[in-house]
Parts: sequence; structure tokens; C-alpha cells
Amino acid sequence: MVTQETLHFRTRGRGTTEITAEVARVVTESGIGRGVCTVFLQHTSASLVLCENADPDVRRDLETILARLAPDGDPAYRHDTEGADDMAAHARSILTSSSFTIPVGEGRLALGTWQGLYLYEHRYAPHSRSIVVTVIGE
Amino acid sequence: MVTQETLHFRTRGRGTTEITAEVARVVTESGIGRGVCTVFLQHTSASLVLCENADPDVRRDLETILARLAPDGDPAYRHDTEGADDMAAHARSILTSSSFTIPVGEGRLALGTWQGLYLYEHRYAPHSRSIVVTVIGE
Amino acid sequence: MVTQETLHFRTRGRGTTEITAEVARVVTESGIGRGVCTVFLQHTSASLVLCENADPDVRRDLETILARLAPDGDPAYRHDTEGADDMAAHARSILTSSSFTIPVGEGRLALGTWQGLYLYEHRYAPHSRSIVVTVIGE
Repeated sequence: MVTQETLHFRTRGRGTTEITAEVARVVTESGIGRGVCTVFLQHTSASLVLCENADPDVRRDLETILARLAPDGDPAYRHDTEGADDMAAHARSILTSSSFTIPVGEGRLALGTWQGLYLYEHRYAPHSRSIVVTVIGE
Repeated sequence: MVTQETLHFRTRGRGTTEITAEVARVVTESGIGRGVCTVFLQHTSASLVLCENADPDVRRDLETILARLAPDGDPAYRHDTEGADDMAAHARSILTSSSFTIPVGEGRLALGTWQGLYLYEHRYAPHSRSIVVTVIGE
Repeated sequence: MVTQETLHFRTRGRGTTEITAEVARVVTESGIGRGVCTVFLQHTSASLVLCENADPDVRRDLETILARLAPDGDPAYRHDTEGADDMAAHARSILTSSSFTIPVGEGRLALGTWQGLYLYEHRYAPHSRSIVVTVIGE
């Protein structure tokens, strides 16, 4: 059995938005008891992360770390037509993830207690982002 | 056809534990000949890596690199209630992987010759870690 | 329904090769309308990236960033028998991805407009690389 739905999110610029509940809803509505749920982001300047969901400081510190690993406006970059955050956003996307495949058990997403799924916008400006959720199982 | 099993591992603190054989066993017992096997870690301060399985120095050097990219006890971190390794562990988890989907062919995991699947504990202390293995195919 | 095919690529040494069309062909030939396509690289010194497909400078700048995060020939590495690019290649592989699961909708890969799938060779020398493509769905 296969269910597929595209979810649309409007981000508020750089930062994280939790999407666990929206993805969980697709799983519940699918009626699939056991299988997997693939969450796929159709963009290269945002990403998906599975992150601790209790303390927002974790996501703030993650931002600190990513800003060091792929600095905005680095003079070494050639791809800068859309601004200082352009190339950094592509690199942050590749260093984190564009896709997760999460198990489905007993009709729900089998995440750990402290795992939240987040859409991470890496551009400064708000963007519309599309995520395709596919649930396969029985 | 879908098979799902949760595996439990006790880590010895920061470092890697090979789990290829345990995951391969779930595949073999599933009786599935062709499809995919999703391995999913239900934690945010440990991770999964596919790494060269011949020379243990590769995992040692990987530790050296990760310790630079997400240093323990960085004064910039705000999330430090559980110790110097707390935020670093979350970041290491996000920079590596929480999930892999590996092909199953001829009834076994279709890994390359030099690929081993490792559970990477990022906390200093030993922890119990759960990994959900789902095999889908025919 | 499950289709599986192993694709073989000869790289020209460090750098990226777009493989979107080859993977899309496996999806089209599978006849599967809705499901997922898992692309899995059977090596630990090359990787897969989903990257902006319009401006080649993005991949050039990505190379600049990865060369900083996992420098070639770092004196701290112990694993150096195959040369200065050996350990760096393993680390680059782990910091990027070995596997993607991409949705299949209306009989084709549901990538975003600007997403291209690339095989990223991290060794200096040309290599033969195998990628297993599995399409599951209905």
C-alpha cells in the first residue's frame, strides 16, 4: 500500500520549523500499520534535520555550528548572485539532510521520545517549501 | 512484504560499534529477496555511519575530524546542562546520519565490500540505544 | 512491485558527475507510478549529493568547503596508506550522503526543479563506482 502527499510550508527566513505533527498526520490517515515513511524536501537551500525537541537552545547552537562550517559571504565563494546566504545555504543543505526514511509501527511514526523533525530554512528571506511524504507498508 | 524489528545496543561511551551483522540477520530472517532495508536510530546524541570496515584508524581519524567540527564544551553553546559533550553530540548526530536505506538483493544486504554499518555513540557515558530495522520487498 | 538495477560509473577523479538521468531511466522503465526510489552508493570514499543543478559554481564552492572541513593530508590522520586524499575521502563521504530515498509520483522521480543528483568522487584518481537503484511502489 502506498500513500503520497505533498505538504507546503511558508518559512520565516533562516531558522527551524517543526513539522513532526504534519508528517504524523499523513501516516495516521494512510491507515498503514507497519512500513516506512519517506520525507523528502524538494529544495537545495533548505534542509531537514532530526533534532532534540525539548530545548530550543539545541537548534540555536546548531545554527552557531553551521554558521562556522559554511560561513555566509565567504570571499572564496563564486556563487553569490543571490546574496551572502546563497552558497552557504546550499552547503548547509548538503551537510545536513534532504530526506529521512522513518519507520512506521503500530500505525504511527516510530520516532524516539526526544526526536523532532524540523524543516531548516537556510536563506535569510521567507520561502515556500514543498515536502513530499510517502508512506509504504501494509 | 514488511518485516520490522527493534534492536537494542549498549554502547561503552563515545565511539563506534559495528552493527552490520545484526542488521543482516534481520534481512536474512525476513525471507525477503529483493527490496530495501531501512535502519533508523531513535536518538539525537548518537548516529549511524557507513564507514570503511578494514582499518580501525579510519574511525579514529573520523573522531578527530568530528571533534573539530563540533567541539566539546564550546563556550558559544547554551545547551550544556548535561555536560561538555551534550550539544556536541547533537551536532555530530546531525552532521552524520540517523537513518540509512540499504538495498536488499538476492536475500541479503547489498553493501559494498568495504562498507560497514556502525552505531556511533557521541556521549561520553555508556547508553542504551534502539535501532528500528524495517525490511520491505518481495 | 520492486525493480532493482545496479548502475556503473567511471569517475575522472575528484569532482561531481550528474546521474539524475540514469536514475530517472530506471524509474521510468520500472512502470511504477507511485512509491520511492532508493539510490545507494556501495563505496566509502565517494558519495551522493543532491545539489543545485543550474550553476556549476555551486559544486566548485562545495569542494572549497569540504576541503576545509576534511583537509587532505592532515598530519593528525593515521589512515594514510593510500595517499593524502584517502582519509579525507572517507570523511567527506560521511559528512555528505551514501544514500537517498526520492519519491516517485506520476511515474517519475519527484525532484524539485533545481535538484540534481550527483555522484561525488573524493579520491584524486579515477574510480569505478557502483550504485544500486531500487524502486518500490505500485
